[in-house]
Amino acid sequence: MDPSLINMSAKYHRFGRYVASVTFWPVIFCRPFAGEATMTQHWKTDVAIVGAGPAGLMLGHLLRQAGIACMIVERQSAERVLARIRAGVLERTTTDLLDRLGINARMQAEGHPHDGFNLADGERLIRIDIKALVGKQVTVYGQTEVTKDLIDAAPDRDLAILWEAGDTTQVHDIASDAPFVTFERNGQAERIDARFVVGCDGFHGPSRRAIPTAVTHEYQFAYPFGWLGILADVPPCNHELIYANHARGFALASMRSDTRSRYYIDVPLTESIEAWPDERLWDELATRLGPAVAPHIVRGPALEKSIAPLRSYIFTPMQHGSLFLAGDSAHIVPPTGAKGLNLAASDIAYLSDALIAWFTKGDRDAVAGYGAKALARVWKAERFSWYLTKLMHRMPGDGDFERAMQVAELDYIANSVAMQTAIAENYVGLPL
Amino acid sequence: MDPSLINMSAKYHRFGRYVASVTFWPVIFCRPFAGEATMTQHWKTDVAIVGAGPAGLMLGHLLRQAGIACMIVERQSAERVLARIRAGVLERTTTDLLDRLGINARMQAEGHPHDGFNLADGERLIRIDIKALVGKQVTVYGQTEVTKDLIDAAPDRDLAILWEAGDTTQVHDIASDAPFVTFERNGQAERIDARFVVGCDGFHGPSRRAIPTAVTHEYQFAYPFGWLGILADVPPCNHELIYANHARGFALASMRSDTRSRYYIDVPLTESIEAWPDERLWDELATRLGPAVAPHIVRGPALEKSIAPLRSYIFTPMQHGSLFLAGDSAHIVPPTGAKGLNLAASDIAYLSDALIAWFTKGDRDAVAGYGAKALARVWKAERFSWYLTKLMHRMPGDGDFERAMQVAELDYIANSVAMQTAIAENYVGLPL
Repeated sequence: MDPSLINMSAKYHRFGRYVASVTFWPVIFCRPFAGEATMTQHWKTDVAIVGAGPAGLMLGHLLRQAGIACMIVERQSAERVLARIRAGVLERTTTDLLDRLGINARMQAEGHPHDGFNLADGERLIRIDIKALVGKQVTVYGQTEVTKDLIDAAPDRDLAILWEAGDTTQVHDIASDAPFVTFERNGQAERIDARFVVGCDGFHGPSRRAIPTAVTHEYQFAYPFGWLGILADVPPCNHELIYANHARGFALASMRSDTRSRYYIDVPLTESIEAWPDERLWDELATRLGPAVAPHIVRGPALEKSIAPLRSYIFTPMQHGSLFLAGDSAHIVPPTGAKGLNLAASDIAYLSDALIAWFTKGDRDAVAGYGAKALARVWKAERFSWYLTKLMHRMPGDGDFERAMQVAELDYIANSVAMQTAIAENYVGLPL
Repeated sequence: MDPSLINMSAKYHRFGRYVASVTFWPVIFCRPFAGEATMTQHWKTDVAIVGAGPAGLMLGHLLRQAGIACMIVERQSAERVLARIRAGVLERTTTDLLDRLGINARMQAEGHPHDGFNLADGERLIRIDIKALVGKQVTVYGQTEVTKDLIDAAPDRDLAILWEAGDTTQVHDIASDAPFVTFERNGQAERIDARFVVGCDGFHGPSRRAIPTAVTHEYQFAYPFGWLGILADVPPCNHELIYANHARGFALASMRSDTRSRYYIDVPLTESIEAWPDERLWDELATRLGPAVAPHIVRGPALEKSIAPLRSYIFTPMQHGSLFLAGDSAHIVPPTGAKGLNLAASDIAYLSDALIAWFTKGDRDAVAGYGAKALARVWKAERFSWYLTKLMHRMPGDGDFERAMQVAELDYIANSVAMQTAIAENYVGLPL
């Protein structure tokens, strides 16, 4: 375990009958706790965070920056977490959080500010000049890099992360003021007692399931296609992203840096990756991105190639008792529009403010209002992701008419400053 | 027949090998033409217009104003044409045409300029302030009134209308420079020879079918619900239109004047009108329009009550040889957004300019470009009508998620000036 844990200073906050301890108590219990373990490693903190993805890491750092005790438990190893290939377009909301943490040096040095992006209809490029339209930029900087920066900064900032808990994590007693999290590592049972538990454990994580189903509701849409992605060490075909809706299907030209490109096409969910050797995929990308773009595509061997399903998912409520949900544990967006990471960041912006207000000012209202506040923004981002996905993909049951409506909408967008502005304000992220 | 026909002065335009006569030639043929008729009443003109709805009437008047010979054949009587209950929101494009014709006195006196309209989500009203957002107004003046004004002005302006041709009309030889229209009236065969034929004969008219199917394409979407409408002599519940998307379904509060209201709700297409006695319909309107509106609804007996299906339909091409299509003969929009009449008017604005350029300046390009020009605007209006219909109605297959997306979109609209502007610019009509 991280030795920084031991060195943390103890302090106490008292609000009403609640006493929060920021000391970690490694206690060896003498009776068995989980089935197979015979002893329990026992921790105490203020906020137990489940999941060391960007949401959990950002929250952990923000709480530590405010002097609040917290710790993170993560099922994977740090290496596995960093091997995930994810989105790479950061809204201002997200970069603001990283700036506030001061974990922004590499992002500033290596990230690329973008003033716009492009829609394509198979022939032309329709540029959405976000800088001119709404006065903001987005930053292209991989989610993997954000995660790495946050993990690297953890030891110096006394942010404890317990790695490799596997699939054993469970969240308990969220109806009480003393919830706790149990898990096993290396065959040993462990437990974190906290005032609050925050589920940042993604779509497949256990946190959400701790909320009684009687009060929950799930909204979802599963798309009948996936994105076949290729990552290659070649220069991007364009200095800005291109989302294309060609008669043959969707394509996205994206990038991680000046020398690393990320491309996608949509394929049926039943498609196998073996059906798409690199050359076939490059050919298809050239066709779908259209004649204006194709000559600029530089081909190279795939560093990674995979098919990811698309899903719209919203779970309500985002808080129950002493448990809060943030990021993918409560909502999934299709990747069109790159809202996933940014929505996790805005959840964390709301939640960190609320928790800091609770622990430093005794403000209970902010915490009580978190779920509603976060959800209002989630719905808008879900709407935009759904809109952009429907605009750029063939949807189930779509025929000639629906295709013609897509073409008409792209043509309308190409000619309407108002509609370009509406798209731009969503793309850069609606205000918190 | 209209005696003004006989009095029209003869003149000739010569462009290349084409000789256009603006004299009408009533000729009695001595051989049988149509099956049952033994003699044919034979007319000659420059432009034969099929259909005396607003499209045909506007075109006829514009051509006559430019001194071009034309005549209209209509299947119904004038009384039947005027008994049709139709939309009542005129875009600036449409009022501009009526102004240009000088057939605008009653519209100016009785029409109501509107600065905005409202979307409702069952609770609140979301006002789209079209005047403030895009600097234009719309005019509430019934299509029935527009049609009446155009019919009333016909005799004084030498616009010949042949009423009551029934379902016998056929369009012939459109691949040639000498197309003609045949029909029967009162058991007698009649024929109009012309340089051009214009089909303004609506969705069920014969004109479109004269184009060889090898070159045509139909795009369509049939909605699984209809609009149950009630017309009543009661003051409107609001000074502007309200489109509501309540959890129970769609409602529209509209008006024809200060004392005549028009309301709609959506119902399954299988619904029978008998299931909706007036009181049930008023109750349902009050619920769907929401608590902010309900107290202002004044109830009254139905002058008219009917269920109309909704359809999106686009036929291409809009011209072939010597035949042009305009208005509902080429495209149908669902009534959400009130684009039907206005789209007919914009078709006629393009087509009248092209035909006038042909007959007065020998400009062949304008006529050749009509279809593409008109269709570009048709697609955009179809898109907007489709968008607004989907936003305000439950669509086939829609579940919780799609409903939530509607609510999110209404909430987004309520808070986004950019999106309100995009809606407003479509509502007032995109520029010609």
